[in-house]
Amino acid sequence: MKIEQGQTFTGIEKVDKYRALYYAGASGDYNPIHIDPDFGKMVGLNGTILQGLCTLAFAAKTVTDWAGDPGKLKKIKCRFSAPVMIEDTISVQGTVTEMQAGRARVDLSVVNQSGEEVLQKVEAEVEI
Amino acid sequence: MKIEQGQTFTGIEKVDKYRALYYAGASGDYNPIHIDPDFGKMVGLNGTILQGLCTLAFAAKTVTDWAGDPGKLKKIKCRFSAPVMIEDTISVQGTVTEMQAGRARVDLSVVNQSGEEVLQKVEAEVEI
Repeated sequence: MKIEQGQTFTGIEKVDKYRALYYAGASGDYNPIHIDPDFGKMVGLNGTILQGLCTLAFAAKTVTDWAGDPGKLKKIKCRFSAPVMIEDTISVQGTVTEMQAGRARVDLSVVNQSGEEVLQKVEAEVEI
Repeated sequence: MKIEQGQTFTGIEKVDKYRALYYAGASGDYNPIHIDPDFGKMVGLNGTILQGLCTLAFAAKTVTDWAGDPGKLKKIKCRFSAPVMIEDTISVQGTVTEMQAGRARVDLSVVNQSGEEVLQKVEAEVEI
């Protein structure tokens, strides 16, 4: 695949009912807001929320699926802007915004099913 | 510690609210009966139940705490006889029933707060 400025790609992920539990096991992040719906409600969330780094992982996977090789993703960063609830659907769109020194800079939009940005300022660098 | 036939020891463990979730992460056993109270109710359990091997681990830890060294526990086996619910209290009592060829055989009673045996025929071998 030839990577060019302006190129776009997309990904979509419905958050599995048990994803926050699986991610708790994988990451060690067992904060009750991720694993206990009653606790989530008690602190004003509408149940449990997904770990932010898991949402970022969905975004990263969209990039690596597009790039064809996980090793090509050299950097990714974001701001966590809104909680992702269990069974939300996360849509990712990436755009190559710059090509320089063997790297493509990719800006990503990451939104839930209501179009709300759950991550902001999502920038990745991909080796080309 | 000198281990002698007839010697007894005990252990007690209140099953943490999140223990089945932690054990799911540790063991990979994410069966919904262990992590999803609604699913548990749907299949006729009163919520989620603890992984049987986690209950056996409580019994094993009682033995190794008594023996003073995890490496001294050479064998343990049991029959899983009743489900352990989240927030049950598990009481373990061990008795040295035989000493032979450098090993102590320990028979264990493992019951919940109602005195119901949650494990049966629990036998361990400890190096002496």
